[in-house]
Amino acid sequence: MLIREIEPGDRPAVHALLRACGVFTEEEVSTALEVLEVGIAGGLDGDYPAFVIEDEGRVRGYVCVGKTPLTAGTWHLYWICVHPESQRAGVARALQAHVEQFICSRGGERIVLETSSQPGYERTRRFYRCAGYAEVGRIKNFYKTSDDCVIFCKEL
Amino acid sequence: MLIREIEPGDRPAVHALLRACGVFTEEEVSTALEVLEVGIAGGLDGDYPAFVIEDEGRVRGYVCVGKTPLTAGTWHLYWICVHPESQRAGVARALQAHVEQFICSRGGERIVLETSSQPGYERTRRFYRCAGYAEVGRIKNFYKTSDDCVIFCKEL
Repeated sequence: MLIREIEPGDRPAVHALLRACGVFTEEEVSTALEVLEVGIAGGLDGDYPAFVIEDEGRVRGYVCVGKTPLTAGTWHLYWICVHPESQRAGVARALQAHVEQFICSRGGERIVLETSSQPGYERTRRFYRCAGYAEVGRIKNFYKTSDDCVIFCKEL
Repeated sequence: MLIREIEPGDRPAVHALLRACGVFTEEEVSTALEVLEVGIAGGLDGDYPAFVIEDEGRVRGYVCVGKTPLTAGTWHLYWICVHPESQRAGVARALQAHVEQFICSRGGERIVLETSSQPGYERTRRFYRCAGYAEVGRIKNFYKTSDDCVIFCKEL
């Protein structure tokens, strides 16, 4: 597996990934694509650095992060998405470890992320807990009724 | 006192307000001004609706809110700023009440905001608590060392 900075040519693969995941709404996909465009345009020094992971030449996942405005050393992990066929192969873990190292190399001190409280995201939440993220907040009904926002943070 | 939608002609007054407050860093002021430009351009149906409050013809405060992307009924309160000379005259309370009504009229169900844990913001936090906001999260050292992010939420 190879992790590298995202390139313009990765657009079709990332679009396909987002749809293949099956968990994102249309609005979420289009938001992710907007952020992706900024990520591609700005590169690693831009507002939304993004990386893809390749396995045997095929893009199997991507991740997008960004320095949190008005903070000294806080970054947000905005999006991590792995192809359903690769979800048990350590792809997400590899992406996660890569962005932690990247953020650390840029002087980042912690990573904050938000995810859903719904049962469909239980595996996601477990993934972050196992990776050392602690729940630091919860906003009831944030996304919609009975769908809270769970805020996680990890000190690097 | 009169509360109205922000207009292009309010720019100088709002710039002066942000500097007169004395609590915002240069980076915070310039971020607030960027958001303000989007607010002026987009109006009440845009991403960052903003309102000013006038007293005897002078702008004494402003507030900027926005519907939170990817949520059904959640809004963020991004910025509220009141001239130091008016900070005990109910100006902030009036702005707060006005945006709550505005958000409610747009189908919003809750307001989320983030503020600092530092002693200089104790009055701000008390203001929100008294207005019915509950602390729902805290991210240690978020802004900088010993400066946590405190997340508040109010159900409308």
